[in-house]
Amino acid sequence: MWGGRFAEGPSAIMREINASIPFDKALWREDIRGSKAHIAMLAAQGIVSDEEAQSIDRGLDAIVAEYESDGVPEDWSLEDIHMTVEARLTELIGPVAGKLHTARSRNDQVATDFRLWTLAAMEQVEAGLAALQRALVTRAGEHAVTIMPGFTHLQAAQPVTLGHHLMAYYEMFRRDASRFADARKRADECPLGSAALAGTGFAIDREATASALGFACPTSNSLDAVSDRDFALDYLSAASACALHLSRIAEEIIVWASQPFAFIRLPDTLSTGSSIMPQKKNPDAAELVRGHAGRIIGAATALMVTMKGLPLAYSKDMQDDKPPVFEAHGLLQLCLAAMEAMIAESTFNEARMREVAGAGHPTATDLADWLVREHGVPFREAHHVAGAAVKAADDHGCDIADLPLDVLQAIDSRIDESVRDLLTLDASVAARTSYGGTAPVRVQEQVEAARKALGMGIAA
Amino acid sequence: MWGGRFAEGPSAIMREINASIPFDKALWREDIRGSKAHIAMLAAQGIVSDEEAQSIDRGLDAIVAEYESDGVPEDWSLEDIHMTVEARLTELIGPVAGKLHTARSRNDQVATDFRLWTLAAMEQVEAGLAALQRALVTRAGEHAVTIMPGFTHLQAAQPVTLGHHLMAYYEMFRRDASRFADARKRADECPLGSAALAGTGFAIDREATASALGFACPTSNSLDAVSDRDFALDYLSAASACALHLSRIAEEIIVWASQPFAFIRLPDTLSTGSSIMPQKKNPDAAELVRGHAGRIIGAATALMVTMKGLPLAYSKDMQDDKPPVFEAHGLLQLCLAAMEAMIAESTFNEARMREVAGAGHPTATDLADWLVREHGVPFREAHHVAGAAVKAADDHGCDIADLPLDVLQAIDSRIDESVRDLLTLDASVAARTSYGGTAPVRVQEQVEAARKALGMGIAA
Amino acid sequence: MWGGRFAEGPSAIMREINASIPFDKALWREDIRGSKAHIAMLAAQGIVSDEEAQSIDRGLDAIVAEYESDGVPEDWSLEDIHMTVEARLTELIGPVAGKLHTARSRNDQVATDFRLWTLAAMEQVEAGLAALQRALVTRAGEHAVTIMPGFTHLQAAQPVTLGHHLMAYYEMFRRDASRFADARKRADECPLGSAALAGTGFAIDREATASALGFACPTSNSLDAVSDRDFALDYLSAASACALHLSRIAEEIIVWASQPFAFIRLPDTLSTGSSIMPQKKNPDAAELVRGHAGRIIGAATALMVTMKGLPLAYSKDMQDDKPPVFEAHGLLQLCLAAMEAMIAESTFNEARMREVAGAGHPTATDLADWLVREHGVPFREAHHVAGAAVKAADDHGCDIADLPLDVLQAIDSRIDESVRDLLTLDASVAARTSYGGTAPVRVQEQVEAARKALGMGIAA
Amino acid sequence: MWGGRFAEGPSAIMREINASIPFDKALWREDIRGSKAHIAMLAAQGIVSDEEAQSIDRGLDAIVAEYESDGVPEDWSLEDIHMTVEARLTELIGPVAGKLHTARSRNDQVATDFRLWTLAAMEQVEAGLAALQRALVTRAGEHAVTIMPGFTHLQAAQPVTLGHHLMAYYEMFRRDASRFADARKRADECPLGSAALAGTGFAIDREATASALGFACPTSNSLDAVSDRDFALDYLSAASACALHLSRIAEEIIVWASQPFAFIRLPDTLSTGSSIMPQKKNPDAAELVRGHAGRIIGAATALMVTMKGLPLAYSKDMQDDKPPVFEAHGLLQLCLAAMEAMIAESTFNEARMREVAGAGHPTATDLADWLVREHGVPFREAHHVAGAAVKAADDHGCDIADLPLDVLQAIDSRIDESVRDLLTLDASVAARTSYGGTAPVRVQEQVEAARKALGMGIAA
Repeated sequence: MWGGRFAEGPSAIMREINASIPFDKALWREDIRGSKAHIAMLAAQGIVSDEEAQSIDRGLDAIVAEYESDGVPEDWSLEDIHMTVEARLTELIGPVAGKLHTARSRNDQVATDFRLWTLAAMEQVEAGLAALQRALVTRAGEHAVTIMPGFTHLQAAQPVTLGHHLMAYYEMFRRDASRFADARKRADECPLGSAALAGTGFAIDREATASALGFACPTSNSLDAVSDRDFALDYLSAASACALHLSRIAEEIIVWASQPFAFIRLPDTLSTGSSIMPQKKNPDAAELVRGHAGRIIGAATALMVTMKGLPLAYSKDMQDDKPPVFEAHGLLQLCLAAMEAMIAESTFNEARMREVAGAGHPTATDLADWLVREHGVPFREAHHVAGAAVKAADDHGCDIADLPLDVLQAIDSRIDESVRDLLTLDASVAARTSYGGTAPVRVQEQVEAARKALGMGIAA
Repeated sequence: MWGGRFAEGPSAIMREINASIPFDKALWREDIRGSKAHIAMLAAQGIVSDEEAQSIDRGLDAIVAEYESDGVPEDWSLEDIHMTVEARLTELIGPVAGKLHTARSRNDQVATDFRLWTLAAMEQVEAGLAALQRALVTRAGEHAVTIMPGFTHLQAAQPVTLGHHLMAYYEMFRRDASRFADARKRADECPLGSAALAGTGFAIDREATASALGFACPTSNSLDAVSDRDFALDYLSAASACALHLSRIAEEIIVWASQPFAFIRLPDTLSTGSSIMPQKKNPDAAELVRGHAGRIIGAATALMVTMKGLPLAYSKDMQDDKPPVFEAHGLLQLCLAAMEAMIAESTFNEARMREVAGAGHPTATDLADWLVREHGVPFREAHHVAGAAVKAADDHGCDIADLPLDVLQAIDSRIDESVRDLLTLDASVAARTSYGGTAPVRVQEQVEAARKALGMGIAA
Repeated sequence: MWGGRFAEGPSAIMREINASIPFDKALWREDIRGSKAHIAMLAAQGIVSDEEAQSIDRGLDAIVAEYESDGVPEDWSLEDIHMTVEARLTELIGPVAGKLHTARSRNDQVATDFRLWTLAAMEQVEAGLAALQRALVTRAGEHAVTIMPGFTHLQAAQPVTLGHHLMAYYEMFRRDASRFADARKRADECPLGSAALAGTGFAIDREATASALGFACPTSNSLDAVSDRDFALDYLSAASACALHLSRIAEEIIVWASQPFAFIRLPDTLSTGSSIMPQKKNPDAAELVRGHAGRIIGAATALMVTMKGLPLAYSKDMQDDKPPVFEAHGLLQLCLAAMEAMIAESTFNEARMREVAGAGHPTATDLADWLVREHGVPFREAHHVAGAAVKAADDHGCDIADLPLDVLQAIDSRIDESVRDLLTLDASVAARTSYGGTAPVRVQEQVEAARKALGMGIAA
Repeated sequence: MWGGRFAEGPSAIMREINASIPFDKALWREDIRGSKAHIAMLAAQGIVSDEEAQSIDRGLDAIVAEYESDGVPEDWSLEDIHMTVEARLTELIGPVAGKLHTARSRNDQVATDFRLWTLAAMEQVEAGLAALQRALVTRAGEHAVTIMPGFTHLQAAQPVTLGHHLMAYYEMFRRDASRFADARKRADECPLGSAALAGTGFAIDREATASALGFACPTSNSLDAVSDRDFALDYLSAASACALHLSRIAEEIIVWASQPFAFIRLPDTLSTGSSIMPQKKNPDAAELVRGHAGRIIGAATALMVTMKGLPLAYSKDMQDDKPPVFEAHGLLQLCLAAMEAMIAESTFNEARMREVAGAGHPTATDLADWLVREHGVPFREAHHVAGAAVKAADDHGCDIADLPLDVLQAIDSRIDESVRDLLTLDASVAARTSYGGTAPVRVQEQVEAARKALGMGIAA
C-alpha cells in the first residue's frame, strides 16, 4: 500500500504495534461518511467522472451494509479503518476505487473521522447531562422544603433544604454542558482536504465537503489541521470536569447510604449484594461512578502526555489519541445514566435528615446574626457570644434553643425570649432568603428557572 | 477567632499544616477589594451605618498602603489572608472592624477573592497570547514565500512555506485564547453573599456587590458557590492546552537549532552558554518552555485529584486549590513572553531550509498528482508509479526531477518532459492553493486575516 | 561566565525564565558539601596543590557561615546555586576559586547535589513513617479487643476490632517504608566526576568522592549520570503511594468525625473552628492530608511529563525537576506529622462503634458458616438461608440473633438454639482466628510483631 | 447470587456499569488456579471431603479445557470471572460446587487473582527488559569506538562513542528491572483466606494456599489484604519509569532518522510508508513507543486517582484497577519488543555521526583542560581562553584545531603546537578515561560487565 520503494514488508512486531484497526474500526461510519462527501465533491469539481463517483458511492453503501450486519474485519496488515475500507472497496469495484484517495491523505481523513465522532460524542454527553439535570430538578422540586443538615468539612454546619443541595449539582452540570458546547463550537471546522500536511493542487471545494459533513467551515491551515488534537483534549478536559462533579455526588450517595447516616435508600435495581455476607446491600453504582472518575482523568492525562513536545505536522504518536477518548466516553455515558437513575429512583429518609440537621447547634449562627441585627453588635463579638452559648448548651446537654433564659442572659444580657423562634430549623432555613440562599422560596425560584431552561414545563 | 468553644489553641503541627497565609497572601488586593465592595453594600442596605462603613473603608485603604510598601506579614496563627487583614483592621479601627464580617463567611470570601484573581490571570494570558500571535503573524508575513521542508514523522514530506508553518501555531494560540475567553465567561459569577454555605438572613444586595466587583451576576446556588472550583480547573485546563502548544513549538526550535538542522539561530540574548564547554550556545529558553509544560499539566492533575470525591459544601482540601494555579500562571506567563521573544528575534536560515526541503524527493506526490490529473490514472496506481520513480532516483543517486526521461518512461510511458517543471520546490508549493494550503497566495491571505483579527493593520 | 563567544548578555525575560536560584538555593548545603569533597580529591590526586585546596576549602567554610546566618542571596544573573557559591568564593579568595571547577561541570554537580538532598529526604520520610507506625501500633494495642463495624462499600459488613483496622494502616506504611528503602538503594550512586556528559581526562578518583559523600559507589555511565532523574521520580512515586494511604486514613477520620458516625473525637489542638458558625469543630488537619495527596500526585505527574521524550544528555527541561520534589516533600512531611498526632491524640467512641457494629445483621455470615460447618451445607445454599433470615429479621424489626426459633426453623429446619451464641459481636470477632484475621488473639500477635519490627519493646 | 434479601434484580444500566466480566475474564487462569489451591487446602483441613474436592477439581479442569478452546463467555448477569466460573461449575457438577466458596469471598479471591496476574506480568517485563538490554549491549560492543557527537540541549557538546551512548540506556533499563524486582518482592504475599475483610472462622491453612500458588507468605492483615492495590500501583509506577526511558530512546531514534541528522537507518521491516507520499519511510515504531508512554503514565494516574480517599475495606471503585494495568502491560510489552528490534536491526551511519561530531568545536573543553593541566591555569580562566579561540575559529571559518598558531598564541601565549593532537575527535574521546567516561577502554569494560550481568558470555 505504500508503493514501490519498500523491499520488505513489516515484521510481526511492527504489524502489531502499528495496527490501529482494533480500535479505530469504531470510526467506520464516520470514515465512510467522509469518503462519500469527498467523492461527491470530486465529481462536482470534475476531478472524477460522475460514473466513477457513483460506482464508488455504491461500493461504499455496500460496505456499510456489510459492516452493519457482520462487523468490521480486523486485518492487521491493512493497518487502519481507512485502508480496511479502501481494500474492500477495491475488491468490490476494482481499480477505480483508487480514485477515492485523490486529493486527500489518511492524515486529513483520520482527523475528519475523529472530529465527527467526537462532535457526536459531545452531543451525546450533552443529552446525558440534560437527562441527569432533569432528574435533579424534579427531585429538588419535590424536596424544596425538606430539611437536611448542610455540611462543611462533613460537619453539620447549618440546616439547608435537600432541594437546595440537589440544585447545587444542577449548577455543576450546567457548567459542564456549557463546557461541551464551547468545545463543540471550537471543533466545528473540517480538516478534509488538508491532505498530508500542505493542502493539494487539485481544485477541490473544501466548503462543500465541510458543509456536507455538517461542519461550520473548513480549517484554515493544513499543517495545523492534520496535527491538531485539541478537539479530543477539549473532550477529555470537559469529561474530567464532569467526572469530578459526578464523583462528588457519588461520594455523597455512598456516605448517605451508610448505616450511620441513613439519609438515602437506593432501589434494589441499583444495588448489589455480597457473595459472602447475605445482609449486604451495596451502592456499587455510586462507587463505580466515583471510581470511573479516576480513569477519565487518567485518559485526559494520557493524551496530554502523548501530545507534549510533538513537532509538526502529523506524528504517529497521535495514533494514541483514540483509545483514551473512546474509553472515557464509554465510561462517562455509563456514569451519567447510572447517576440519573440513582437520583430519580432513590428514596430520601426525611426524618433521619431532620434529626441529624437538628444536632450540634446548627442555628448558632442565627443567634449571632440576631445580636448583630437587633442590637448592633459587631459580628465578631456576636460570634463569640454564640460560641459561649454552644459551650453552655453542651455543658447542659441540650440544644442552644433549649437553654434556660438566665443561662443565655448570663452569657449576654441582651438576649431575650424572642430569639428562640429563630433558632428552629425551619425558621433558620426560611430566613436565608438572600439570592441563591437555601430558603424554600429561593429554591423554588431556582427550580422554576431550571425547569424553564431545560424545557420541562411547569411542575405538577 | 473561632469564639468560645475551644479550650485549647492549635498545636504547632496544626498551625503549620493549616496556615494558608504563605501562599494566599497573593490574594491581598482581591481580598480588600471584595471587603470594600461588601461594606459599601452593607451600608447602602442599612445593615451598618455610613460612619461604620467609612471607618472600615478608610481602615482598608490604610492596609493597602501598608501592604504596598511593606508586603503582607505572615503570621501562621492568623491562618489566612482574610484573618490577617481583619486582625490588622481591628488594630487600626477597633471593634467596629468586626462589622465587616456581617453576612459573609470566609467560604464565600475566598471563593470571591480567588475568582477575581483567576479572572485577571486569564486576561493576562489572553494578552500574552495576543502578543505571541502578533509575533508569529509578523514573521509569517515576512516568510510567506520562504521554502522549508514540511515534516511528518520528522521525515521530510512535502515542501511548505515557513509562513504557513508559523501560521499553524497562530491557529493553535487562537484556540487557546478562545478557551480562556470561554472560561472567563463561565467564571463571571460572584459568590459573595453565599456566606458559609446557605446564604444569609441579612437583607444584602448581591447584585450590587457582583456589579461593584465587575462580575456579570451573582452565583445562583450558595452551596455550589462555596464548593465550586471549576473556574480554577478551567484555568488549568486551558493553561495545559496552551502549554502543550508551546511545548510543540519549543521542541521545533530545539530541533531546528541543533547543528544538523541549523534552521534557526537564536539571539545571544535568548541563549546561554556552558560552564565547561566554551563553544556551546544552548536554546535554554525553549527547553524551559517545553519543560514547564510538565509542571503546568502536573498542576492541573493536582487540582483534579484534590477535588475528586469531595462532598458538599466547603472542605478544607479545597485550600490546596491555590498553589497549583499560582504556580501554573507564573510559569505560563514566562513561557508566553519567552516564546514571543524567540519568535520575534530569531533568525531563520533560509538557504539551509531550502537545501533540506529539496532532499529526499519531496515532490513525488506532485508526480503522482500529475498522472491523476493529466492521464486519469487512479491515485493508488499513480502513487505506485511515483514510488518506483523514487526508487530509480535513489539508484541513480539523483532527485526524481533529474531522472533521464527514458528512465521515467520505462517506469510509466505516459510521463513526458512537461512534468519536470512541476517537480521543483517552488512549483510544488505554489500549486497547493486549496483553502488552508501552503501556496504563498493562501498564506498571505491567512496572514492578512490574522492581522485584521489582531487589530494589527496592513503589513508594511 | 560562559567565556568569550557571547556578544550580548541575556535579556530580562531570559534571565527570569532561566534563573533557578529562587528554588535551587535549597541545595546550598549539598552543593558546598560536594565541592569540599571534590577539591579534597583533586588535591589528593595532585590535580591542584594542597594550598589551593585549603584555600578553597576555607573559602567554602566561610560561605557556609555566611549562608547559615544570612541566607543565600538571590541574584538572577548568577543563575543557580553553583554559580552563586562560586562567585562568592571568587570574591573571597580570588582567581584560585576557578580551580574548583576543574574536572567537573554543573551537570554532574547538580545531579550530585540533588541526589544528596533526595537521599536525605527519603530518610526523613522513613523516620516520619516509623513515628506514624509507632502511633498506630500503640493505639492498636490499646484497642485489640474494641469492637467496631468493619465496612465494605462503606456498608457495615462484619464486626472487626479497631486494633485490626489500625494495623491495616501499619501494613500500608510498612510497604511505603520499603518503597523508600528500595529507592534509596537504587539512588545510592554518585554522579560527581561525570563532568558535562562524557567524563573527564583528568586523573580523578571517583571512588573517593563517592565515598566521601556517603554514596555506595560512583555511577557507571557518565551520559546516564547527568541525564538521569530516576531518583527524583522514585521519590515522587513512593511519596504518591504513601500519600494515597494517608488520604485513605484521612477520609476515614473525616467520616468518623462526622456527627452521624461519631466514632472519633479529635483534640482541640488538631481542630479548627469557623469564622461564622460558632458551634463548628472541623477536622481540617485530616482534610489537608487528604487534599495534599492531590498535590503530591500532581508533582509526580509533573516530573514524568517533563522527562518524557528528552534526548540525551542533559537538557534544560530537567531544571524543572526540583520544584515538584521540594513541594511534595514539604507536604508529605507535614502530612506524616499531622497524621501521627491525630492517631496518637484522638479519642475513640467505643460505645458508638459497638452500637453501629451491631446494626444491620453483621453476623449473618456467621450463621451461614455455622450451617456449612455443622451440617455440611454448601456455602452457596447456606448463604441463601442466611439471606432469608436477614429478610425475616427486617420484617420482624429485630436482629437475626433475636428471631424466634420457629421463624428460624421455618427458614431452615437445621437451625437450633446453639447458633445464637455465635451471632454476638464478640463471638463473631473472636471466631475469626485465621492468620491475619480480626480475632483479638491474632491482632495482639500482629501488634507484638510490629512492636518488635519497630524496636518498640513490650507494650506496658 | 446474593441470596434472599433482594426483591428485584438489577436494572439494565446497573448490569452494564457493574459487569467486570468484559475485562476480568483475562484473569480466568489465575482464578481457576486459585480455586484449585483453595479446594485442595479445604480438603487437607477436613473442611470438605476428599470426594467433594476431587469433584470440584475435576470440574475446574473441565472448565479450563472449555475456556482454552472456546474462550470465556461474557454474561453480564454473572458480573465477573468468579461467578462465571462458579456458575459453570455448578452446571457441570451440581450443588457441591457451592462448597468451593467456603471460607473465602470474592474480595480475597480477586485480590489473589490479580496479584498472580501482576506478578507474572512483572516477570514478563523483566524478560523483555533483559532482551532489550542484550540488544543494547551487543550493539554497544560493536560500537565501542564509533565516534558520535554527544549532545546537551541537543547541541553538539563533546564527542562520545556510540557504545557509550547505548550503554546509558542499558543503565536505565537496569534500574527499571530492579524496580520490577523490588515490586515483585513486595507483592509476594497471598491474600487468599482474608475472606470478605475480617478473616474466617474456618480452620484454614493460609500458608498452604500461599505456598501452592507460589507466594512467599500469606498477607498479615485481612482488612489490608482486600483493600490493597499497591502491587498494581507498583506495577504502574515501574512501567511509567520504564516507558519514560523508552520514550527517550524513541525520541533519539526519530531525531536521528530525520534527514538532517541521518545517523540511523531503520530496516524496512520496522518502517512504514505513506498513503500519499511515495518517497516516505517513517519511524512509526519509535513514534508509537514514544506515544505509548503517554498512555502508560495515564494508566498510572488513573489508578492513583481512583484509589485516593477510599475508606477501608473493599470499595467497588477498586474494580477500576484492572483496565489500566491490563492496558499498560499490553503497551509496555509491545514497546519493549519493538525497541529491541529497532536496536538490534538498525544501521548506524558512522560517517555521518563523525562528520557532525567534528562540527562546532567540540574539543574546546580539551583545549581548556590542557591549559589547566599543562600550565596550571584555573579552569575558569582556561574556559575563557578556549571561548576566545572558538570565536576566532568562527571568524576564520575553521575548526579551532586548524587555527594558525599565531592566532592561537595571540589569544594565549602559552598555547603551542603540541595541543593540536589533543583536539582531534579520537584523542578527545580516548582521553576521557575517568570511571564511567566515554573512552573506548571504559566502554568496553562497561560492556563486559553488562554481558556478565546478563549471562551473555564473552563477545565474539
